[in-house]
Amino acid sequence: MNSTIRAWAAQRTGGPLEPYEYDPGLLGAEEVEISVEHCGVCYSDLAFIGSEWSPTTYPIVPGHEVVGRITALGDNAKGLSIGQRVGVGWYAGSCTHCHPCIRGEQNLCAQRQPTIVGRHGGFADRLRAHWMWSIPLPEQLDPAVSGPLMCGGLTVFNPFLLNGVRPTDRVGVIGIGGLGHLALQFARAWGCEVTAFTSSAAKHDEAKALGAHRVVSSTDAGAMKKSAGSIDFLISTVRAPLDWGAVLETLAPKGRLHIVGVTTEPVPIIVRPHLIAWQRSISGSSTGSPGVLATMLGFVARHRIAPHVEHFPMSRVNDAIAHLRSGNARYRVVLDADFS
Amino acid sequence: MNSTIRAWAAQRTGGPLEPYEYDPGLLGAEEVEISVEHCGVCYSDLAFIGSEWSPTTYPIVPGHEVVGRITALGDNAKGLSIGQRVGVGWYAGSCTHCHPCIRGEQNLCAQRQPTIVGRHGGFADRLRAHWMWSIPLPEQLDPAVSGPLMCGGLTVFNPFLLNGVRPTDRVGVIGIGGLGHLALQFARAWGCEVTAFTSSAAKHDEAKALGAHRVVSSTDAGAMKKSAGSIDFLISTVRAPLDWGAVLETLAPKGRLHIVGVTTEPVPIIVRPHLIAWQRSISGSSTGSPGVLATMLGFVARHRIAPHVEHFPMSRVNDAIAHLRSGNARYRVVLDADFS
Repeated sequence: MNSTIRAWAAQRTGGPLEPYEYDPGLLGAEEVEISVEHCGVCYSDLAFIGSEWSPTTYPIVPGHEVVGRITALGDNAKGLSIGQRVGVGWYAGSCTHCHPCIRGEQNLCAQRQPTIVGRHGGFADRLRAHWMWSIPLPEQLDPAVSGPLMCGGLTVFNPFLLNGVRPTDRVGVIGIGGLGHLALQFARAWGCEVTAFTSSAAKHDEAKALGAHRVVSSTDAGAMKKSAGSIDFLISTVRAPLDWGAVLETLAPKGRLHIVGVTTEPVPIIVRPHLIAWQRSISGSSTGSPGVLATMLGFVARHRIAPHVEHFPMSRVNDAIAHLRSGNARYRVVLDADFS
Repeated sequence: MNSTIRAWAAQRTGGPLEPYEYDPGLLGAEEVEISVEHCGVCYSDLAFIGSEWSPTTYPIVPGHEVVGRITALGDNAKGLSIGQRVGVGWYAGSCTHCHPCIRGEQNLCAQRQPTIVGRHGGFADRLRAHWMWSIPLPEQLDPAVSGPLMCGGLTVFNPFLLNGVRPTDRVGVIGIGGLGHLALQFARAWGCEVTAFTSSAAKHDEAKALGAHRVVSSTDAGAMKKSAGSIDFLISTVRAPLDWGAVLETLAPKGRLHIVGVTTEPVPIIVRPHLIAWQRSISGSSTGSPGVLATMLGFVARHRIAPHVEHFPMSRVNDAIAHLRSGNARYRVVLDADFS
């Protein structure tokens, strides 16, 4: 169980992924080891390879949308068995005893451990994670496409629970990509009236197929103005700067903009028209707790929601990354482990 | 009942208030006429006199924190009687039949009518308002100090209900002035742990007397840093620009900044540290509905909360305004009607 793990790692800022082996040491008492079958590629993998959001420690083994089978259990690992298929997302561990942890919000633990920061991720033949963050995959889900649910899916599912979205709400999704195409499916299954906002004319039909009742061109000032006051809950998945004034004006009284896309430019809020006049709010989140992840997987199975993915063998990880960077992925990229 | 109303009005942008008489016309079927006893002076009166937030139509009769007795009832006015003491706040009317109105959120009605915009306010001997926006004053409240509850009080009370603040929450109040000194009293009566943030060293003891368990100097970077992550719900009442990054960092995971002070400079939100990383949110509101106003008056009576006010005869309205502008009011200014 202590044999070397074979992985793909970046050795320097923005460098290509290269074969990399490391000794994972003894398996922690509360950890499990997972044989990776599939691993999604998320934009945050690219951001960390490139030190875009904060300085990265190299080598980095990216990959935090893992699906695989348990091959080893630490002495104190609970509720899991050898051979069981599980998923691991953005976090692989938390302290388990702090206030957020004991109230079921382990993703807000001050000691939360991102799967690819201070540990090595899922672009590898094996991965280790805390048992609590290794979530059993329901039988009904196709393991080959389920990796992107673990981070991307959870990122857009959690906001529905966090904000108490109701089926009577009018939900908007800005940006129809890896996150947005899942958000549309969730919003439709949630029973909401769904509007897609996209800058890409080519995605209008696809957005409707994914669940949108209507599609608004987010770069058409006139169309945005016509949508003023029409959205109760708006999820922004985009990273590019937006005309935030126009976006906020699409919100109805009491409407909320929930941001999950990491835009690095400041969002300039004008208090009086944007927030105060109509009781609007702005919030943000990333991923979610193990409990919400398990809840989401059940919802996904029941509603036959699925990420739309393109597959690459893991040995072509650099091609997969280039494809994701190009903006042409429809909509998420999954690596299939092919270590010989 | 159609006799001329005597008032104080500004005739031009930023001009002094001068005696002004107008004919209110026939009393609307759903309106009541109120003989003004007291009227608070709110910063928004000053902003409208000065066209600070948007262009004002002159003459303007300010005053939207009215306490007085009903002297006339329109044919369809409901639930009120001649001689009854009522209060009127920022809004004096709404359509009563739209979606927000019928669900009890009349303050979000698209036809909502501010008391001092398109109608004349309470710096006068009489005032007219829709019956629904004329709220009976509980017997236990002192009419001479209750005017500021109608706008200032409601502005900081409504956020507690809107955001589901719980007695287990750690509540912060930024800015201990006309709004903040009421927010502190509400937060303490709500059962919360209360922190006051003020730039004025002179207000530390007063903030404690008003209910704060601790006081933090908002301009002391070190003190702000020490407060990082310690507040669940933070109300900002200030109009001056703040170091918003430092303010947002005082929020605990899932913490919320709720803005009621009209700052005109943009609030620059950095999505990743401020919102996404710890599921924080930012919201805003002004005033509230008639139902919440009535609820607040009951809460105020039960908890013996009171605005701290300084009185001026209405004939000295310009002195009162100058005093409020000086920043030295402790904490709210009330005009006592003295028309001969």
